[in-house]
Formats: sequence, structure tokens, C-alpha cells
Amino acid sequence: MNAFSDLSHLMLPRSIALIGASERPQSVGGRTLENLTRYSRLAGKLHLVNPTKSAINGMPCLPSVSAIDDDLDLAIVAVKAESVLEALQECANKGVKFSIVFTSGFGEAGHDGKFAEERMLRIAQETGMRIYGPNCPGLNNINAGLGMTFSPAWQLDQMPGPIGLATQGGGMGRTVLQAMARGIGTGLWCSAGNEVDLEVSDFIHYMATADDIKVIATNLEGIRNGPRFLEACQHAARNGKPVIAMKIGKSEYGVKAAQSHTAAISGTAEINSAVFRELGVIEVDDVDELVDIAALLARGQATGREKLAVFCYSGGTAALAADKIGSANLTLATFSDPTLDRLRAQLPEYASIDNPVDTTGIVLTNPELGYEALKTVSMDPEVGAVLYPIPFDYGDITNQAAQSAVRLQGEIDKPIVMAWMSDKPGQGFPALVEGGMVPARSVTNAVNALCRYIDHGDWQSSYDTNWRPYELTREASASAERIVAAHGTHREHEAKAILTAAGIPVPRSAVVSDRDAAARAFTRLEIGKAAMKIVSATITHKSDVGGVRLGIDSAAQASSAFDAIMDAVTSQAPGNVLDGVLVEEMLDAPFAEVVVGIHRDPVFGPVCTVGLGGIAIELFKDVSRRLLPLDETRARQMIAETRCSKLLAGFRGKPPFDVDALVKALVCLSDFVVQHPEIEEVEINPLAVRVEGQGVVALDAVLSVKQGAN
Amino acid sequence: MNAFSDLSHLMLPRSIALIGASERPQSVGGRTLENLTRYSRLAGKLHLVNPTKSAINGMPCLPSVSAIDDDLDLAIVAVKAESVLEALQECANKGVKFSIVFTSGFGEAGHDGKFAEERMLRIAQETGMRIYGPNCPGLNNINAGLGMTFSPAWQLDQMPGPIGLATQGGGMGRTVLQAMARGIGTGLWCSAGNEVDLEVSDFIHYMATADDIKVIATNLEGIRNGPRFLEACQHAARNGKPVIAMKIGKSEYGVKAAQSHTAAISGTAEINSAVFRELGVIEVDDVDELVDIAALLARGQATGREKLAVFCYSGGTAALAADKIGSANLTLATFSDPTLDRLRAQLPEYASIDNPVDTTGIVLTNPELGYEALKTVSMDPEVGAVLYPIPFDYGDITNQAAQSAVRLQGEIDKPIVMAWMSDKPGQGFPALVEGGMVPARSVTNAVNALCRYIDHGDWQSSYDTNWRPYELTREASASAERIVAAHGTHREHEAKAILTAAGIPVPRSAVVSDRDAAARAFTRLEIGKAAMKIVSATITHKSDVGGVRLGIDSAAQASSAFDAIMDAVTSQAPGNVLDGVLVEEMLDAPFAEVVVGIHRDPVFGPVCTVGLGGIAIELFKDVSRRLLPLDETRARQMIAETRCSKLLAGFRGKPPFDVDALVKALVCLSDFVVQHPEIEEVEINPLAVRVEGQGVVALDAVLSVKQGAN
Repeated sequence: MNAFSDLSHLMLPRSIALIGASERPQSVGGRTLENLTRYSRLAGKLHLVNPTKSAINGMPCLPSVSAIDDDLDLAIVAVKAESVLEALQECANKGVKFSIVFTSGFGEAGHDGKFAEERMLRIAQETGMRIYGPNCPGLNNINAGLGMTFSPAWQLDQMPGPIGLATQGGGMGRTVLQAMARGIGTGLWCSAGNEVDLEVSDFIHYMATADDIKVIATNLEGIRNGPRFLEACQHAARNGKPVIAMKIGKSEYGVKAAQSHTAAISGTAEINSAVFRELGVIEVDDVDELVDIAALLARGQATGREKLAVFCYSGGTAALAADKIGSANLTLATFSDPTLDRLRAQLPEYASIDNPVDTTGIVLTNPELGYEALKTVSMDPEVGAVLYPIPFDYGDITNQAAQSAVRLQGEIDKPIVMAWMSDKPGQGFPALVEGGMVPARSVTNAVNALCRYIDHGDWQSSYDTNWRPYELTREASASAERIVAAHGTHREHEAKAILTAAGIPVPRSAVVSDRDAAARAFTRLEIGKAAMKIVSATITHKSDVGGVRLGIDSAAQASSAFDAIMDAVTSQAPGNVLDGVLVEEMLDAPFAEVVVGIHRDPVFGPVCTVGLGGIAIELFKDVSRRLLPLDETRARQMIAETRCSKLLAGFRGKPPFDVDALVKALVCLSDFVVQHPEIEEVEINPLAVRVEGQGVVALDAVLSVKQGAN
Repeated sequence: MNAFSDLSHLMLPRSIALIGASERPQSVGGRTLENLTRYSRLAGKLHLVNPTKSAINGMPCLPSVSAIDDDLDLAIVAVKAESVLEALQECANKGVKFSIVFTSGFGEAGHDGKFAEERMLRIAQETGMRIYGPNCPGLNNINAGLGMTFSPAWQLDQMPGPIGLATQGGGMGRTVLQAMARGIGTGLWCSAGNEVDLEVSDFIHYMATADDIKVIATNLEGIRNGPRFLEACQHAARNGKPVIAMKIGKSEYGVKAAQSHTAAISGTAEINSAVFRELGVIEVDDVDELVDIAALLARGQATGREKLAVFCYSGGTAALAADKIGSANLTLATFSDPTLDRLRAQLPEYASIDNPVDTTGIVLTNPELGYEALKTVSMDPEVGAVLYPIPFDYGDITNQAAQSAVRLQGEIDKPIVMAWMSDKPGQGFPALVEGGMVPARSVTNAVNALCRYIDHGDWQSSYDTNWRPYELTREASASAERIVAAHGTHREHEAKAILTAAGIPVPRSAVVSDRDAAARAFTRLEIGKAAMKIVSATITHKSDVGGVRLGIDSAAQASSAFDAIMDAVTSQAPGNVLDGVLVEEMLDAPFAEVVVGIHRDPVFGPVCTVGLGGIAIELFKDVSRRLLPLDETRARQMIAETRCSKLLAGFRGKPPFDVDALVKALVCLSDFVVQHPEIEEVEINPLAVRVEGQGVVALDAVLSVKQGAN
């Protein structure tokens, strides 16, 4: 994994060369020059490069970057595609630290462009000059007033603020910038286009320690390098900077087909979401949601234990807000007696002073009273945040209400979250915007933001930032142990033998090749009741072809079951190579059937999946996932996340199942896969979880080993 | 059930008396007079009533309504609470058809107010004068320019339009009115406050045939009369008018505790939602969602088979839109070859011409090209609607794009659904508003509206508007049959005997009272394997107290099981009256365990619930519900709605189960409950659904009969 460079002098260069500077105002070089000189507060030196000019707009212009007599932090490359590589090589030779390449016509344009990008990357790797782009609109350091971009909108969408934004495509980045019209600024926008070298993860990593950035937001279409993304997000978590991500690819259009059972119900989008959740990355579905949450997180960190107050002058709206708070599993605060006494004294008799508070319209005609009552509610010791929805515009009256909220927010730390529900902005909406309240467009949006804000506080308070995902420690942990088995997918009994080595209990069993051996095995294994199953590397669904017989309870039955299985499989699935029949101990009920699997995600590395088997996993996709390695705490957390954990805990009078043994099995399997990088995928389905104290048993399993690993 | 009156002359009265008219502009009577005379197009005659004046603002004023020499359609009552009843009685005596009562201080103020409301209702019932209110802001007939309201905002929030709105509390009604700022008007707003007589259902019923109303919207806090609501919604469905409802009470704050198993996981909110779905009422969660959907439905009726096109000039935004369309289970159209050829000719080589279409920024500099390409997409034969998100404001450029969309929408019938994603309105947002496009605030909102629009078209095309819910036919269907059993909750074997009468198969069984009888019963019933269960009216969870033994396969085992059960129950649950032990045939696997229940919802009458048993119903609440009566089609639909229906159909190589027999059992149970109104609740849990052709068997059941019904 490439280390992260210090990007300070990319974000705020002490000296810049603009290669392809132009005096034509509509050209890329001309617009960039105008943005840098006319619409920026340029702190460092600016050198212009253009071989055809000696001066541009009265500034001296040199023929090449090598002619510049200065150490250069940044070269901005605004030349035609065919001249880009040469310009970059020259910059690298000169010792330039960073280059921004605006030019299009590379990776996105086909094979030749991809090849040129490989050469760019080689220049970066060989010389240490970091490249930003190509095919990008540039870099907007709004907090520093520095527009290293050719966009004509640079001077329009500028509001300093706490959001740091890293995008790939540029379009929706500007949508986030325009949230300035709701009162929140984006202080830094990095949009590195084709990401030939620097990528979203680099910017997240930089923003994690940037003083002017409080919340990191990103809009992703794909994650180029999983480990670097993990590292950057962990860096942000260690520095208490929340990361909000919008990732496209949630529907079938973006979900890869996958072969094995667990992978089939997972797919890339589900793995992404699981990894985001694990890393505390707040996943959002749209830009307005991103802005609502960023604005709230920019005010400060939640503890995760916040209880809410609803304050409103419309009874119906207060009820709606309380209803949504309940639906989101958030908690309404119980007001203290002094709070209730004060509200009783402040508000009319027909007001609802208990949470949710309906002041009635009285506060509309007496704004000072509105301020005082809101203050009373906000100061209640149990209240962690206040939701204040304004249902409609009522001219100066709602303006006064908005002003009161802004005034109080200036005096207290607890967030007052406003929802402006009307399509009429009136004077109140601009007053809230002006006051930095970033009103949500609906109660639903406001409650969602509160929910994510509180959840993130809870996550932050419990997340162990010292834990390192497998992909970040892989090289250190690769063991010298022998390969466990031949490559390819293993038959059930071979897989079980491997699991035994991993410390996962399996049933006593034997593979037999004739009816007499079946009877002998039954007797020798001393099992009360046996299951018998066909052994064949080419038959996946054994029971579909008559290849399974259950409940065999004598040696004689074992013999006839052998014949029955061979007959059935031969007639129902002719042409398969049959390697015998497995005679295996059958467990007594009750036990819960759990699916446990580990597969290697191409982006994030090995991921463990657990869920109750049967219809829970098939129809309801009730699974939980974690990156490897698992320890006991993480294994227990992932079990607790499934809805089926209620069943494991002993449901409606049923006995509790052996969750401790399940935890142990998860940790064993994780350790085993970490020690054996040749294991491509393993799935135990089902793992029988017996009642408390009786452990687990792997009843069926498949395992595949990487080709060439042997 | 009260019949529905013709409300035409309430909505547009030919003659009005304003009782409590005043010349003080801040009084209720004064503001109403101003609204009627200065801010309304008053078509009918207006008579002023005030015993202390002979003229107000130059208009004659009479001392009482009886002095008016005219037939009165409407009296508006704007007097103090203590004078309201007298005024209403006088109006009724005079033969006034409708009264609107603004005055507060009735039901919402306590016991005396409730009593006064009962007297109001009696006046209405005895004289036929219909009452609107009290405690309400009045009635806004915006399409007729008539404000029968004292609200000072009447003259501000007026935009004629296709939405008819019926609310209880007034607050969020005004929020809907203010959607005028997004380009859609509310033509009629009825807000009848305490609903002493006329209620939301009356207004829905009226709007169903009102020519100026295309979409009916309602914001409900509670449904006063279930049957009238059902009737009004069916009336709307028969007239092709969609009803959109926002109902508060989805979280635990609104969900009633309920005793039996099915009811416990249902609760009022879930029943409401199920009934809404069944009636085609589109349930929404917030006002912005209500407006988005209303605006789309106002453009016309979907077929339910619409496929979509995405048109955008930002690749990332186009991908987001396609992603959301996939997540919503909607379908992207496959463009025809002529469409693709035309787009290829119109757009640059680097554009994406396949659906989703990314035109690239070219259309921003060439708006005519944008118009032409949008037209090409819209005219594709497979495209039913176009989603066109505008990600950010770009000044006149995005204005031109907006104008193009408005222009094309003026020429074609297929809806072009716009999302304006930026917080900056620029010129483009107002252009869309002006053009009546009602832009959604996000792609998510736009896709949600499209989804509900298409779903509603699908519902409308398959709903049988001739079907009548039980509550609307109850009196006609009440049978003369004998009561089936004593009141109270019945023990398992009694419940099963009743089910047999209903046509639901139950296992062969006998109740025995000693160990020998158990053995004899086992032999006599000729059953291979028996289940034995304690019989006691006071023990609900039999297996929790050792009261169940399974898999008994000999007469001798039956005897010892009898002893074991009696011992266990006596020691584990002492003090219960034990009535013996049930010896019952045990079914061979495989069968699916289904829960079937019917309970009487206090608002909507009997509701049937079906779902797969076990964890599916307990943890995942995977159930479907329908109002009685069921026929085969409706029973089959409700099974198909559960996610578990996949399992019933034969899942992953399992045999298909006997869904036909399950359908038949649902219809039998429905018929039985319809014929026996004394049945309060019945739950079969589980109903074993055997493999195809083998039928169903009720393995356990509880049934309760109304007290006093015997």
C-alpha cells in the first residue's frame, strides 16, 4: 500500500506554475489565470508558462517550467492531451511536488488514454511528484480563497465552511457547494477525476487532520484501492472527523453476480455498506441527506445518548415530529419538574407542555415568549438536542420565530435542529440560513439527520481505532504454514477435515464405498442416528438428486440407505463421478442452524458473514458482516446485529443457544483464514448451534483454495 | 352508517349568513367579512347578522338569522362559545342547509365542551342541517375564489389547482397550500376541526366527483368512522380519483397494546397501512412527499406498466438516478433502434446515449440540442415517463435547460419529472415552477413519486371497485345462525371442533383423563404418531410448563406420556384447572407452518392476517392483511404479498406446498366469521400447509367469542 503524502502544499502551494497560461478568457488556461489572479487570494508566487508568449495580461511568461527560477510546489497543467506527458516529465525533472492535470482525453477516452495514464503514474512513482487528475475540474480551496480550477463558477459558489469534500465525478460536488444557499459552506473540494495517482482516500486522509475541516464528505462511484480507503477512514476516526459517503451502485445495476450462497445474497453494494458501517462511515443516499447530516455533525460530536425535545407551535406538526422520532428508535426526553413548572408559567393553559411541546400560536404573536419557552426546553438537563419544525410561512411572524431560534442557538451548545417544511421561503427561511441553522426541508429529513448524528456518536464512543483490518496487516501476518489442501473446491468431507484443523467441531463420520462398509461404519462410529450423503465433487445440491438420507438408526438401515442413495443419484443425476457415501452422526434437536462464511472481497479483502440459516438468510437477508480479523468482541457484535440474535438468545420459551461457542467458532475461522491466505472462500451451512454449553457442530461445508496456491 | 349528503352548496353556497359579523378588522367576524367581501369572488348573496348593529361597512345588518328574508345555504357562525348552540338552533329552525362553526372551546377544552358537541350533533341529526367544525379555520374554496375563513393568510396562499385537501388539524394543511411555491395549487381545502358532524370522509366523498379536483389529499390524526372512510375511498376509486393520506401514529406512541399474538405484531398503525394499501390509498410520511406524488398524479393516471428514461447532462447524476430506479424495482426502458440512431446523430461521441442518457455538458451550451435530445428520448415507444434531474444551478444555462423541459412538456403527454437538486434556485427553479413542473427537491423524492404513481396505476387497473368490505354490508349479512359456542376464550380442542364446522381440517384427536384412556385413544384413532398436550383453559403456553409431548408412537408410550405431562404441569404450573390431555395425530414432515388469524379492528372491522409461522412472523413481521370478506382472488393476493410466498411455492428444491388448500381455508374462515358476528377473534397457529395436493391441517388454535353473545 502506498503511504500517504503530506498534501499541505498541494492545498496551499507557496509557488505555482500555470502551464498553458492564456490571455483568451474562454480558454482553460485563460479562465484558470483569471480564477487565480482575479478571484483568489493568492498567497504564494504564480509563474506563467507558455512557449508562444513573453507576457500575459502584463505578467511575465516563460517558455517552459525548467526556465522558472524558483522551487515549485504545484504545476497546473492546462495544455492539450498530446502535450501533457511531456509537461509532466519536465515538471518532475524540475522537482515540482504536485501537478494538477485538467486535460481530458485519457482513461475515459479509451485504450490510448489508459496507456498514457500508466505513463503518468510511472512518472509519479519514479520521481515522487504526486499527480492530481487528469480529466478534472481542479481543486477548490475555498477556505483559503484559492481556486486552482478553470471552472467559470468558481467565483459564484464560494462560501468558506467546515465541510471537506472529495469526489470523483465533479457534477454532484457542485450540488454540495451550493448548500451554501442553506447556510453551510464547503471549505475544500478535491475532485481528482480519473485519479491516476492521488485519489479520494488521499484527500480523506489529508482532511482528517486539516484544522479548517470538521466533516469529511465524499461521493464515490468506485473505490480504487480498498486498503488505502480503510486506512484513510481509520485515520479520520482517530482524529474524530466524521466521514459521510454517498456511494452509487446499490441496485442490481451495480451488484455483481457471485457464485457461492453467501456471496450471492451479498454483492458489492452490501459489502460496501457493511464496511462503511463498521468504519463509522455514514452512508447516505442523496445530496440533500449528505448536507443535512454534515451540517449537524459540523456543530459537534454526539455522545450517542442524546434524548430529544420537540418544540413547535402547531399541534399536528409536533405530533408528526414525535411520531418520526419514535419510528427512528430515538428517545424523547422526560422533562424535569423545574422545566415543566417553568413551561406551565410561560405558556397558556391549553398548550402541551410535555414533550413534544406544542406552544400553540401564542408564540407567533409574542416572539419573546417563544424565545423564553424554547430556552426552557433546551436547558432541560435530559435534553440533548431540540427539533423545531416550522410548518409554514406566516410572514414576519415566522421570521420572528426563526430569529428567536438563531438567537438562542448563539447562546447554547446543544443543537437546535430546524425543519422548514414549506415551499414558501418567506423571511423566516433566509433568516435561518443567515443564522447558519441549515434548515432541513422536511421533518423526515431533520429526524434522519438527528438519528445519524446520534448513531455516529455511539459508534465513535465504542469503536476501537487501534484495531487494524486484515488488508492493512496482510504482509506482516502471512504465515509460513503449509498449504492446507489442493486448490479447487473441496468435497464436504475434505472441507470438514480442514475445519477440524481450524478448531471447528464436525460430526463423527466416515466415507464408505459399499453397503457393507456403511453398516460397519455405523457400528464402529457408535452413533445413535446417522445422516448419509452422496460424496461427489460435481454435485452441489445433494438432496435435490436423492443424495441424502436422514434418521438412519441401525446398521441394516445404513446398508439399505447406501443402496437407495446410489440408485437415486445414478438415475436422477447420471454422469457424475461418485466417490462414495458419507455416514455421519446426526444431531439431536434442538439446535439453531447458522450460516457462517468468509469470502475475499476484491476491494476490502476477507469479509465474514453470519446469519441464521433457512428462510432468515434466504428470504430476509438477515446477515451481519465484518472485516477480518475477528476477535471475541467483534464476533459478538456481529451476532448481536442480526435480528435472529433474539432467537439465539432463547426466544418465546425456547432454550438459549450456545452463543459463546458460536463466537469461538467465528474467531477460530477468522484466525484460520488469516493464517492461510490460500483459502479463497469457506462456507459452513449449516453450523448447528446447540443449546447453551453444548457447543457448535459444522453439519455441512464447502471450501475453496486458490489455484496455484499448492 | 350515515349516508353522504351532497355538499355542493356548502362548497359554493348561493346565499350566506355571517353570524357575528363585525367591523373590527382584527376580530374573527371582521376578518371573515373582509375575506368574503374584499378577497373573494362572492357569487351568492351575503347577509350580515349582529344584534348590536344595523349596518357594517355600509352593508345592512340584521339582528338574527330568522330575520333574513332568503333561503340560506350556509350560516358562518363566528360568535362566542356560549352563543354557538343558540345560533345553530336558530339556523336549523330557519332551514339553513349548512353551518360552519369557527369557535373554539368545545371538545378540545374538556367535558362541558364535549357535552355541547353532543347537543350540536343532535341538532344536525334532528334537523338535517350539516355542521362543519367547531374549532376550525373554515373552508377555503380556492378554485371558486371563495374564502369562508377568518384566516388572515387567506389572501396570501391562493393558487387554484387540482388538489383537494381534507385535514383535521389545520397546521400542515397550510403547508400543502404553500406548495404553490413549487407550482401546484390546492383548489379546495376542508379543515373541519373537531368534526362534530361533517368529517374528512365527507370531503373525500365530495371531491371524488368534483370536476375541479383531480387528486384528493388528506392529513389524518385519527379515523372517526371506519366504514364511512372505506365507503368514501371506494367512491373515489370508482371515480378514478387517487387518495393520498398522511396518517400520524406509526411509532410506538400510536400503536395500541394488543393481547393475542397476531394483534400484538399488528397494532393500529399496521392495520391502517394495510387497509390503505388495500383501498389504493397512497400513504405518505411527510408533506413534501405528499406534494411530489399529488403533483404527478394530477398530470394523469399511470397504467402501472410504465418504463422510465433518465435524461441528464451529468454522468454521476444520471448514474444516481438509474441506481435509485433500480432500488425502487422500477424498470428502465430499452430504447428502440430509431431512438438510438437519432441520439447518436444528435449528441457527441462521448455522450452516453443508452438509458440512462448522459448528454454531457453539450446541451448547456446548446439548449436547442437539449430540447431535441429530450424529445427523442420522450418519444421512444417504450418510455412511459422521463426523469430529468438538474444537479446544480449554472445561471442562465440551467435556466435554458429548464425552459426546454417546460416547452417539451407542453407538447407531449408523457410526464417529464424534474428534480432540482441544488439549494440555489437560480433562474431555473422558478422557470420550472412557473411552467407547472413542480420540481422535486432530490432524485430520491422524484423516484419515490414515480414509484408510487406507477404502483397506483397498477392497483387501479386490478382493483375490483364492486367488492364491498364487510363493515359496509354487515347488516345485510348478519345471519340468523345459532351462536357457535359459549363466550370467552376457548380451549384448543373446543376451538378445533368449531374450526371443523367452519370447514378447516383438524387432526384426529381425543381428550382423555387417565393413562389407560390415553392408550385406548391412541389405538382407536389409528394414528401412526401422536402429539399429546395438556388441556386447560388457564394455560396459554403449554410447552413452557412441560405440557406437550411429541412423537408418541405406541399405546404404551401414550400412557407414560400422560403421566409425564400431568406430573410436569402439576409441578411447574401448580394451581391450574386441568381438564385432561389431548391425544392427537401428528403430521409427517414436510409441511410449512402458517399463521392465520382474524380479529376485529375497532375502526375497520374484521381483518384477516396471514404469514408464515416461526421466526418469519416473530422477528420479521412478514404478514399480509385484508379486510373481510375474502374470496379466492383476494386470499391468493394476500399470500402472494408475503415474502414467504416464495417458500410456499417450493423454494430451493423443496416441494411446493398446497397453496390452493391454504386459499380455501382462508375463504372458509372468512365466510365463517362473516356468518358468526359473535366470533371476536380466531387464530390458527400453526396451520400446517402440506405438500401440494395434501391439504392443510389446523395444528393449534384459539378462538374467542363475544361476551353476551350467547
